[in-house]
Amino acid sequence: MLNSFIPVEKNSHFPIQNLPYGAFITEGGEIHLCSAIGEYVVDLCVLDEAGLFDGELLADRFVFQDSTLNYFMSLGKAAWQEARNTLTNLLRDDNPVLRDDDLLRARVFVPMEDAEMVLPVEIGDYTDFYSSEQHAYNVGCMFRDPENALMPNWKHLPVGYHGRASSIVISGTDIHRPQGQTIPADSDQPVFGDSRLVDFELEVGFFTGPGNELGEPVSVDNAEEHIFGMVLVNDWSARDIQKWEYQPLGPFLAKNWATSISPWIVTLEALAPFRIDMLVQDPEVLPYLNQKNRSTFDINLEVYLDADGLEEPHRLATSNYKYMYWSMAQQLAHQTITGCNVKPGDMYASGTISGNDESAYGSMLELTWKGTNPVQLANGEERTFIKDGDNIIMTGYAENKDYRIGFGVVEGKILPSK
Amino acid sequence: MLNSFIPVEKNSHFPIQNLPYGAFITEGGEIHLCSAIGEYVVDLCVLDEAGLFDGELLADRFVFQDSTLNYFMSLGKAAWQEARNTLTNLLRDDNPVLRDDDLLRARVFVPMEDAEMVLPVEIGDYTDFYSSEQHAYNVGCMFRDPENALMPNWKHLPVGYHGRASSIVISGTDIHRPQGQTIPADSDQPVFGDSRLVDFELEVGFFTGPGNELGEPVSVDNAEEHIFGMVLVNDWSARDIQKWEYQPLGPFLAKNWATSISPWIVTLEALAPFRIDMLVQDPEVLPYLNQKNRSTFDINLEVYLDADGLEEPHRLATSNYKYMYWSMAQQLAHQTITGCNVKPGDMYASGTISGNDESAYGSMLELTWKGTNPVQLANGEERTFIKDGDNIIMTGYAENKDYRIGFGVVEGKILPSK
Repeated sequence: MLNSFIPVEKNSHFPIQNLPYGAFITEGGEIHLCSAIGEYVVDLCVLDEAGLFDGELLADRFVFQDSTLNYFMSLGKAAWQEARNTLTNLLRDDNPVLRDDDLLRARVFVPMEDAEMVLPVEIGDYTDFYSSEQHAYNVGCMFRDPENALMPNWKHLPVGYHGRASSIVISGTDIHRPQGQTIPADSDQPVFGDSRLVDFELEVGFFTGPGNELGEPVSVDNAEEHIFGMVLVNDWSARDIQKWEYQPLGPFLAKNWATSISPWIVTLEALAPFRIDMLVQDPEVLPYLNQKNRSTFDINLEVYLDADGLEEPHRLATSNYKYMYWSMAQQLAHQTITGCNVKPGDMYASGTISGNDESAYGSMLELTWKGTNPVQLANGEERTFIKDGDNIIMTGYAENKDYRIGFGVVEGKILPSK
Repeated sequence: MLNSFIPVEKNSHFPIQNLPYGAFITEGGEIHLCSAIGEYVVDLCVLDEAGLFDGELLADRFVFQDSTLNYFMSLGKAAWQEARNTLTNLLRDDNPVLRDDDLLRARVFVPMEDAEMVLPVEIGDYTDFYSSEQHAYNVGCMFRDPENALMPNWKHLPVGYHGRASSIVISGTDIHRPQGQTIPADSDQPVFGDSRLVDFELEVGFFTGPGNELGEPVSVDNAEEHIFGMVLVNDWSARDIQKWEYQPLGPFLAKNWATSISPWIVTLEALAPFRIDMLVQDPEVLPYLNQKNRSTFDINLEVYLDADGLEEPHRLATSNYKYMYWSMAQQLAHQTITGCNVKPGDMYASGTISGNDESAYGSMLELTWKGTNPVQLANGEERTFIKDGDNIIMTGYAENKDYRIGFGVVEGKILPSK
């Protein structure tokens, strides 16, 4: 198995087989693009300035001297592959170029605990899908009835909506509880105040690469050419605000106050060993959604709640990305079938991912079944929805017998409203 | 009355009192920011390079040497005022600085017919509201019933949804008819093909300036400080795609394939003489939406359809921006009450603006009442929705006895699907 000269613990999310992308603030206060290995951030700007990205496609393009990944994303799969090959080569244990250059090493490797991560992408548009069948079924059961839980369109198209890009924040950003209008039970007069039903949504997102021109749909079998990599997403939601506002045009303020993502974008190449087939879709989908070799990734997902008085974070749920009914390629083909153009740096999220039993539900709404079945914490407290001071931590990784390919964590604390 | 040394026809949209902002492609192929006067584009980059924006706030900031207005928008009202004063001064008939400098004049003024306009803003997020009562009522009557036409939330909050920013295009961009899924009457199996119910929506939008930090709502009485200016908007819609897809998360593909805007952004200062009070809101709104001196602008709006065989474009509707139930300030205060952050260059549209009778309806859906009452054209054809080859032209202007403040036009032709 390929190893790096940088030591990597067995359970690390960042072996040489991962090499995710992110951005951090240097000691000098600049934003540099980076990768990760073991316990270190790898400063890609320094490597680029040293002329080490010298392959055919990236030489003299200075893509890692930008403060965002957008330009790199726009170059497409061949360039992504070249960067990965270059980086793999530089970090492998039998290559002396970086290994034996102490001065360069001192500048390239920054301990993760010293590196403040920032958003590595200027996010253009953000789409949130609704592609986990169990989640859609659970919500349908709660708000309609089990007989008609899924809407008639749900198995024919990947339902989604446009989200708010400006409020996408990096893991570790604390967020004030939103205020807004809600409708009390048995009243037709809304009231103003704190949202009382603040929730997380466990999701996985992806960023697009080159994209398409307006009027030129991306075909489902070509769609992965446009997918740069994946992130963990916590799509924060205010359930009580949503209930009052969402008819007839969908969620708006309920979802516009924050969406947190992991600092690391993991590439499809790193995840390739963890591809698995998806369940057969029934009924059959229309031809533009009919993907050959429909596959997804086996990515373990976990959600924890940390709060004052807990000795360790309480695990709320264990889910998996494999529970998706619609693939990323199908989502992207659907989004563009009208001719909608996709740009480098656009983000697409899965929708809440819930597995088949309640240990695998990806939101407090489902875990507590609308608050009727509170979660019990070790300090004697219970939760229906999220309280001020609660820190929600999500993590995700794929693994085989040799290594893990991980996303690190996405976490965020809910602060009192302002 | 103030006049320019550039002649301006009585009915021109661009007297010296307007001075809207846009961007065009120069002879040399560069994108330059510009304003407009009479029949000319005013090259702001050339004026900036000549050092003529020499006021306290703009000197040496080179804001008009950018290719977008975003930086200028971020500077706020005092800087906008200074730029307007400078430009007014340079263009007035009694100021020799530009008037008598033939070399500079030759570079600054470009005939409009020679200037290809482009989007002057890098648009971050796009929100579309639904703030015309008559429009919401009409849609409610058609799809529900007249007794319950307005949803219970409609008079308590400005209903809106997140739109797709990437597909916002400049006037004159032709657009292919979208394809997608629709559901035939009396069937539960969707079919794929051309949208047959392509429609326009007559709207007016605004761009935000400085904006707010995440977690810091914009107060309703301060909101106009963040509004840079307004544009005409045609929010193209595919009604049949929307009908099948929109439950439960709102319009998605029905609206993601194109939104056209006028090339000119008209400032609130230019529109100030046309402020009028808005109708009293009943029921009273919650305090965070309760705006002192709630006002809007008296802006005439018209929609025309041009097609082969017509001697002149057919006027479909005459409406007015004053028919809005919610003000821009209320929309922005609502959008941010949860803490959602707003950035320079974000766009917000009004929703379809319909007046009180059918000559003032802002969409084919309403004008033809779901296709039951076709529009008759002078060439003997009729229309229920938009046919391939139809060019939809919208225009808008405010006027008093002395001058018009106009937006030019926003037009776009529907081409056959690809």
